[in-house]
Order: sequence, then structure tokens, then C-alpha cells
Amino acid sequence: MGDSTNASSTGDALLEESVRTAEQARELQEAAASHMSRTWADEQSLRQRAIAIDSDLKRLESASKKNRSLDPKLKEKIEEELYRARCILTDGDAASLLPSKSHGRFLKMFLGPINVRATRKEVQLKVKEEYNSYKDRTAFLFLLFPSLILLLRAWVWDGCMPALPVQLYQAWLLYLYTTLALRENILRVNGSDIRPWWIYHHYCAMLMALMSLTWEIKGQPDCATKQRGVQLFLGWAIMQGFAMLLQNRYQRQRLYTRIALGKAKRMDVVWGETAGVEGQLLLLCPLLFLLQGFEAYVGFLLLKTALASGLPEWQPIVCGVLLVVMAVGNFINTVQTLMSKSRFKKKMKRTRSKQDIVEKTN
Amino acid sequence: MGDSTNASSTGDALLEESVRTAEQARELQEAAASHMSRTWADEQSLRQRAIAIDSDLKRLESASKKNRSLDPKLKEKIEEELYRARCILTDGDAASLLPSKSHGRFLKMFLGPINVRATRKEVQLKVKEEYNSYKDRTAFLFLLFPSLILLLRAWVWDGCMPALPVQLYQAWLLYLYTTLALRENILRVNGSDIRPWWIYHHYCAMLMALMSLTWEIKGQPDCATKQRGVQLFLGWAIMQGFAMLLQNRYQRQRLYTRIALGKAKRMDVVWGETAGVEGQLLLLCPLLFLLQGFEAYVGFLLLKTALASGLPEWQPIVCGVLLVVMAVGNFINTVQTLMSKSRFKKKMKRTRSKQDIVEKTN
Repeated sequence: MGDSTNASSTGDALLEESVRTAEQARELQEAAASHMSRTWADEQSLRQRAIAIDSDLKRLESASKKNRSLDPKLKEKIEEELYRARCILTDGDAASLLPSKSHGRFLKMFLGPINVRATRKEVQLKVKEEYNSYKDRTAFLFLLFPSLILLLRAWVWDGCMPALPVQLYQAWLLYLYTTLALRENILRVNGSDIRPWWIYHHYCAMLMALMSLTWEIKGQPDCATKQRGVQLFLGWAIMQGFAMLLQNRYQRQRLYTRIALGKAKRMDVVWGETAGVEGQLLLLCPLLFLLQGFEAYVGFLLLKTALASGLPEWQPIVCGVLLVVMAVGNFINTVQTLMSKSRFKKKMKRTRSKQDIVEKTN
Repeated sequence: MGDSTNASSTGDALLEESVRTAEQARELQEAAASHMSRTWADEQSLRQRAIAIDSDLKRLESASKKNRSLDPKLKEKIEEELYRARCILTDGDAASLLPSKSHGRFLKMFLGPINVRATRKEVQLKVKEEYNSYKDRTAFLFLLFPSLILLLRAWVWDGCMPALPVQLYQAWLLYLYTTLALRENILRVNGSDIRPWWIYHHYCAMLMALMSLTWEIKGQPDCATKQRGVQLFLGWAIMQGFAMLLQNRYQRQRLYTRIALGKAKRMDVVWGETAGVEGQLLLLCPLLFLLQGFEAYVGFLLLKTALASGLPEWQPIVCGVLLVVMAVGNFINTVQTLMSKSRFKKKMKRTRSKQDIVEKTN
């Protein structure tokens, strides 16, 4: 009897507490819903302000550019104000209020309609930082894997590579290029100004890695001749890895310098060949052109060997064409960046000498 | 003279407007920053409330489960209240306040540290909807591609498949399984209760598709014997596509029924074999077991043919092992789900008969 009374009183207490908790959950639900709608309304008004300022800025920027009869000193002041406003708008907390770049087909194909834009600036910067360190880590592997295979070929495998290690490397390449393309698309959505070519370049590279997987690695007899294409490809990969390591070092340094000088937004990605620190550029530029030349050469060699054989396989042909396309695209983009760099430098010099004058006259 | 006065007055106006716009940008920046920190503080307090309610709920749930001496009627009332609170907490606006499931290694490997959790419930549901329609579209292709290849083999290619179409299909499989794995991981982060096995299953399938790409499709002479493995694989894929189509239809129907009955949260994914609508299940269940049996059989055949040949290739061996592993895993998970389904049904029946009693006595 005592037991059942006890049980029923515990039961009543449990029921009471359950009812109370359910009530609390309902209250929380209401509070959360009203918080969300309030936040959304506030954001909406801020968003409208941001869009208005953005369109004002665009109008003023084009007006100051078009107006050639302006006093240079005045023009400089105007441009400075506009540049400052632009920096605040694109690099501050207000950046997330402006409509984002579209997610693009590639991200939609892989992830569906999920939003990958971070609202908080710290998170965006963390993503950028992680991308940079990811590139560093992979550049090292990019150098290591093909070197290892070629060394083993010479020392252990008697000049004839077995299929598995090469295919593992090719699978890794496919993974690497897919993740780079995904991450760069994510960075673009988060406000980075990465040049579209470097993303297209990674699409081409993905395609090439995928195709190279289907490419039969032939063995003995006459292994050396049959594996000539693979060997060339690995040689090119080693040079690529070396260039990537140098580029990463250089670009990160330059990005930090540019941020310090206030010339770059922190979300800028400077993958590929771009403008900057003089000394290292003297080393980097010839190396990049050499690499592009070698890339095109490997492409042509692949085409030649494929077409020379009686029964041409389709993989070396398409690989060859892709390599040539990538080499040409890389070359054009490098030259364009170098040109825009020299324009930028000239302008900076002019501005600086003018600033000197201003400082002296003041 | 008139021109230069004109120019300088336009210039002054431009400068004035630029200064004003820069000022507006600064103000917007401040407003945005204060809005964000206010929102964050509000969210923080809501989050603490959500966590407190969640832990209360957990405590009460386990207390009601452990307490066997409770009056069944009282217990039922308690469980109903707790269930209602749980639904509000996990399916309402408050859901985004609870700490999310970790993103997991797979998403981090592919996307870096970006957050893919949607805060708004509508967006989460849109993602879920899109995932369902994606599965529908791909199940159709899953059926079409291998059927087409096998038909062409019989009618056009004289019993000997060329490599390219098969490899294109394999590349598509790799893409398909990668995107499914990515999307399911994203759904999991967004609160879906998908069984982990179905995601692991897609990792295995990714690996298999990748390997099958490196698998040489041998031609004449004696093509039929050499291509036996590929042919078996394609036959299995057709059955798989057929089962996927049926499953999708069935699961979507069942999900809508369950949502209508209040038994499922809308983010639940019911990929793979699960509980439900009686009539279709009678068709689906034997088909699924048949498919799993066939999967294991194809795996064993691959192993047998690979080991019977003098120089075994590694691809058919690993493919065979993976197929057997997937078949066993699928079987175990199907049985587990069926068992949990029958438990659920028994419980529902008991509850319902009790409810009848309650309704009659009232």
C-alpha cells in the first residue's frame, strides 16, 4: 500500500515536471521564432542601406573615372574617399549584407542547394586561412608522390612502373583537384576575388586525373617505350609541385604585405601567377613560363606518341589536348596579371610622387 | 575659364558626395556590427535555455523509462508530454539553437571548415526535398545507363563492349556516390537521423567506382569470358536501379504518412530498407533480400574468376570483397530496421488499444 502511494506520488511529480518542461519548450519556441523574425526584419533594413550605398559608390566611381577635366589633386582625394568606403563595405561586417555571388553550377552539382556563405567575417577568414594551409600541405605531397614513384622506378622497379602506385597517385590527384575546386568555389561565394581561370583550370585538371585513371599502365615487354607518356606526366607533376610550393610562399607573403599596405582585401586569393615582391618574382616568373612551356611540350609529346601508334588510345589524345589548353590558358592569365601589375605599379608611383608633392607643399 | 570653373564645381560636388558616402558606409558598418553583437547575445541566452530544456527532457525521459511501478495511464500521459516537448525542440525554430552534430571527417576533407548547417527550418526542408528529388532523378539514370550498355552489347557491339561507354558510366557512378555521401553528411548536420550505415555504404561504393575505373576493359579475342565480371556488375546495377526507384517511391510516401501521423520529424531520411506501408513492403522486402543475395553472389563470382586466372588483377579481388561486405552490411541493417519496425508496431497497437479504453471510459 505504502509502495503504491509512493509510486503514484513520484508519478504525479514526474507528470507535473513533464508538463512544465513541455510548457517551457513551447515558450522557447515562441521566443526563438520572434527572435528570428525580428533579426530578419533588422537585417532587411540594413541590407537595403548596404545596397543603396553600394549603388551610390558605383555611380561615383564611374563618374570620377570618366571625368578627365578634374583637377588631379581633387581627383585623388575623391578616389581615396571612395576607396575607403569600398573597403569598409566589402571587408567589414557589412559585407555579408550585400547579395552574395551566385553559388554556381559546380557547387550545386556537388552539394545541392545548401548555403556555404559565412556571415561572420572571422569565419570567412578562418576558411581562407585553412585553404592556404591546405595548399601548402598538398603542394608538399604533390612534389613527394611523383618523385617517389620515379625514384622507385629507377632503383627498385628496373625501369618499369607497376600500375597500383601510379593509379593511387592519380586517384589522389582527382581528390585533390576536386577539393581545390570545391574550396575555391566556396571562397568565391564568401567574397574572394579569385580569377575564374584558376577554377576552370582545376576543372580541366579534375577531368585529366579522372581520365588518367582509365589509362592502362602497360608492363613488360618494352615497358620503357610504353610508359613514356606516364613518365613525362610525372616529370611535369614534380615541376608543378615545386612551382606550387614557391608560389604559396610568395603569395602568402605578398598577401600579408598587401593587407598591411591596405591594398588587398583579406579574402583575396592569389592562386596562380600574380603581382608582387620583386626579388622572388624574378625567380618565380621564369619558372612559371618554363613550367607552362613544359606543360605544352608534354601535351604535344602525348599527342605525337598516341597518333604515331597504329591503334591510338583516346586517353593520351584528350590528355594531350587538355595539357596544351591548360598551358595556353595559364600563359595568357600570367601575362594578364603581370600587365595589370605593372599598370598598378605605375599608378602607385604616380600617386606616391604626388603624395610627396602634397606633403612638401603642405 | 568657364570650363575650368565648371569642372572644379563638379569636382567639389563629387568630392562632397564621396565624403558623404564614405560617412554613410562607416555608419552602416557600425550599425551592422552592433546588430550582429546584439543578435549574438540574444541567441546566446536562447541557446542556454534550449540546452537546459534539452537536459531536463533527457533526465525525465530516462526517469519515466526506468520507473516500472508507474500507473500505465499516468506513464502514457507523461510520455505524451515528453514526446510533444521533444518534437517542439527538435523540429521547430529552436532546433538551430541546440549544438549541431559535428561535421565529420568526410565533409571536412572535401569542404574545409565551412559550416553547412542552415539556421532556418524552411531551408533545411528545402535541402531535404532537393535530396529526395535528386535520388529520384539518379535512380532513373541508374537504371538507364547499364541497361543501355547491355542492350547495345547484345545488338550492336557483337557481345564485346568497348571501354569508353563503360568507363563513362563508371565515372558517373563515382560522381553519383560522392555527391550522395556529401549530401547525406550535410543532411546529418542539419538534424536528419539517417542511419550511419547508409553513409558508410556510399563510401564503399565510391571506392568501388574509383577502382572500377582503373580496371581494364579487355577486348577481342575471347571477349565474352574476359568481360564476364563487367557484365555481372552491370546486371547487378540494373537490379539496384530498379530497387532504388521502388524504395524512393515507398519511402517518400511513408515519410509523408509518418509526418501526417506525427511519428517522424521532417528531416528524417529513410534511405535503405525501413519500416512502413504494408502492401508495398511485401513487394520491396523480398526484392531487397534478393538484391543483397545477388550482390554477394556477384562479389563471390568476381573473387572466383580473379583467383582462377593465372595472374590475378587486384581490382576484381577488392571489388569482390567490397561487394560482399556491402551485401552483408545491407542485410544486417535491413533486418535491424525490420525488427525495430515490428517493435514499434507492437507498441503502437498497445497504445492504440489503451487509447480506445481511455476513450470508452471517458
